[in-house]
Amino acid sequence: MSVRFDFTNMLRPACHGGLPADSLVTAAAAFAGAVADVKARRAAGTLGFPLLPDDAAVRAALKVDALASRDEIDDVVLCGIGGSALGPNMLRSALCPPRWNELDRKARGGWPRLHVMDNVDPVSMGALLDRVNLKRARVLVISKSGGTAETMSQYLVVRAMLEQLGAEWPKTVLRFITDPEKGVLRAIARTDGIVTYDIPPSVGGRFSVLTPVGLAPAAFIGIDIDALCAGAAAMRTRCENESLAKNPAGVFAVLQHGHDQVNGRSIHVLMPYADALRDVANWFVQLWAESLGKVLPGGGNVGPTPLPALGTTDQHAQVQNFMEGPHDKTVTFIAVEQLGRDITIPSLHANYPDLAYLGGNTIGDLLDAERRATAGALASSGRPNGVLQIPCVDAAHVGELIMLFEFATAFAGALYGINAYDQPGVELGKQFTYGIFGRPGFEADRARFDQLAQPDPACNV
Amino acid sequence: MSVRFDFTNMLRPACHGGLPADSLVTAAAAFAGAVADVKARRAAGTLGFPLLPDDAAVRAALKVDALASRDEIDDVVLCGIGGSALGPNMLRSALCPPRWNELDRKARGGWPRLHVMDNVDPVSMGALLDRVNLKRARVLVISKSGGTAETMSQYLVVRAMLEQLGAEWPKTVLRFITDPEKGVLRAIARTDGIVTYDIPPSVGGRFSVLTPVGLAPAAFIGIDIDALCAGAAAMRTRCENESLAKNPAGVFAVLQHGHDQVNGRSIHVLMPYADALRDVANWFVQLWAESLGKVLPGGGNVGPTPLPALGTTDQHAQVQNFMEGPHDKTVTFIAVEQLGRDITIPSLHANYPDLAYLGGNTIGDLLDAERRATAGALASSGRPNGVLQIPCVDAAHVGELIMLFEFATAFAGALYGINAYDQPGVELGKQFTYGIFGRPGFEADRARFDQLAQPDPACNV
Repeated sequence: MSVRFDFTNMLRPACHGGLPADSLVTAAAAFAGAVADVKARRAAGTLGFPLLPDDAAVRAALKVDALASRDEIDDVVLCGIGGSALGPNMLRSALCPPRWNELDRKARGGWPRLHVMDNVDPVSMGALLDRVNLKRARVLVISKSGGTAETMSQYLVVRAMLEQLGAEWPKTVLRFITDPEKGVLRAIARTDGIVTYDIPPSVGGRFSVLTPVGLAPAAFIGIDIDALCAGAAAMRTRCENESLAKNPAGVFAVLQHGHDQVNGRSIHVLMPYADALRDVANWFVQLWAESLGKVLPGGGNVGPTPLPALGTTDQHAQVQNFMEGPHDKTVTFIAVEQLGRDITIPSLHANYPDLAYLGGNTIGDLLDAERRATAGALASSGRPNGVLQIPCVDAAHVGELIMLFEFATAFAGALYGINAYDQPGVELGKQFTYGIFGRPGFEADRARFDQLAQPDPACNV
Repeated sequence: MSVRFDFTNMLRPACHGGLPADSLVTAAAAFAGAVADVKARRAAGTLGFPLLPDDAAVRAALKVDALASRDEIDDVVLCGIGGSALGPNMLRSALCPPRWNELDRKARGGWPRLHVMDNVDPVSMGALLDRVNLKRARVLVISKSGGTAETMSQYLVVRAMLEQLGAEWPKTVLRFITDPEKGVLRAIARTDGIVTYDIPPSVGGRFSVLTPVGLAPAAFIGIDIDALCAGAAAMRTRCENESLAKNPAGVFAVLQHGHDQVNGRSIHVLMPYADALRDVANWFVQLWAESLGKVLPGGGNVGPTPLPALGTTDQHAQVQNFMEGPHDKTVTFIAVEQLGRDITIPSLHANYPDLAYLGGNTIGDLLDAERRATAGALASSGRPNGVLQIPCVDAAHVGELIMLFEFATAFAGALYGINAYDQPGVELGKQFTYGIFGRPGFEADRARFDQLAQPDPACNV
């Protein structure tokens, strides 16, 4: 069984706020254009993510390293940010037992903890580095360019600690994951003989989870990366189908784009009903937001805003807004058919009707009933929603989800008419940061920053 | 020093997408109406959150219980969802050392771990209950109504486990936090002699963090709840000021509401630059979304959509969309003046200019520079933003933040012209769930649910 997308409630008549029932028919030409766009990029060698599942050699190398390291280490520390952190976080929370880092070694099956240092906060960074024994660790430094300020700052702090342990420790502990040719990390690795894994130049950070960016940390904590990539490869085949009605990524992209453009439903909620998939929503936020929020070639700003949610939890936080707020959202649920474990709710306090109806059902029953109830309530209020049905949360099916969302993003980029693979909007902030830090060559940026309005004491309360 | 709100970049001319510079003047009458609304509700006794910091008696009782329990327990398990979970999560991550539950007892200062069971997921629930020794735990069951399906299901599972340990264990381990008179939890507590703390009827779930909902778990893990409430009380005084320009909650509410109504900036991002405050954004999401996303009395749907973010992390995930996506957002940063710890970035690899500029600065310098750079980049692109400046992350200042956001929500509710204190939009989903579960009295809801459109095989890919 594969991941399926049920979009009944995205359309009329099931949902009176839905798109027309024939939307897939009318979108055929636009979808054909999106297919052509993706094909052209693949042919040009600039769109690399679809090929990643085929690289068995890199997986073999990672598994050898992970297995050889396993008994020597208790902790893996990941220096990275953005796509270098969101993918690994997603894989750990989906595919390892809950609260992995709180478990003892036996409960972790002998594999190490994984700490993702995804910020430059001295409090949390310091607290982590106080605790980790770097002599029994591997430190993965992940930056495609080799120049990401946050990641390189993390690296410099850790590197100095390793050098204090002795000259051999940097080479033993460090692993670099970076561009095969360019950048500082590559240069340092060559000089120092540090083991390095490649990020293909044709794969951007937010599409990189199936490169060593995600596969290396996954392998180090015992995740079945072959199954992950096999699932991704299976979904790739489906996403290469040029018939829109048979292409799950195409349908997802066409309907989300259509709701945004036709109905002004520009906020796209992703709401898994499983704690294990919470970080899938957080990973999707970057993929969808950074790929699609762009200036159009002819001017003007487009792009949906992804919003993460979690069922049932956010029924008690965000669903009021989804039900009664402006008609500006779609909701995509992720439903898991077999959670792998269930708990019967005991029949206690039978004298209280407010509790008695629960007894004898299972926790899984309640989770599923609430998802169906929420979907039905949204649909009957004219709020479009769809559901990604995943048979179970294992490596293969998470691989399917990843490839589905990545293809959907590529198609959506073409539908919006923008380049889904760059991020020019973050350059100005970087230049200002370099300017503030006095980096040579950024004096003009510093001057421009200094000319911005200063905090106005009259605008302070 | 107190929390301050710098709104320079929310207005013109600092930000060309800002509101007019005289916005606070023109909003004076509307704000006076909001003040009157809040006053009337307080006078009627239906708006209780402002008074919570004055209840020293409940804090004293909680501290006695927490201290008496401390040496007998290793874990606190919280059964709750929505406001009953988001507030406690926020207090733990803000006011305890990072990754609290991963620390050993000594590093926790002798206080227990805190596990917030904020969902009905059998996998994560089972994994937690496998590990916790309930004989060395306290279980806080938090539901104002005493009837929340998720919370009561969690409770029933735990209760059965406690009864298997022996008849004395439920009474020893359980604490109920619920309405002083109504509901099943109150009734069970009376019968079984279970220690119970009150949630005042005039305080709704999302405003309840300064009731025992938040104070009990906080006290049990050693947080200074007196300082928390002292900070909240200090901010209350400022939020009672009827002069808009002196009222931080008023200014926040007026500017967010104004950007939504005048400019269509309906997505309100909250982006702390400190890992410790990440869960403040998640708590704010419920407060802002569930309070303000409503049907207007005369029909029509209003309400902003809050969006959580984290600096610097989300510069690499969401800021591209904030910079170049549609002009539909405001961004509120939270900046911490004294993080309490810093780490110098070592001057290594001096031969690489791409790294050399970092050395000698601190991690805290980088965090602060990136926030200022991001704010400047947004402002110069016409994207309005403000910054809440918090002197340090301690209990008093977190208390200030809480009260500021709660008053801002109350004012914003009045400005939008809706009731900020109910959540009628979630009732339909609850009724459908009860119907699916066969709860007596919900047969009509079941019938209505069954009449909704079924999944259409033609809408499945």
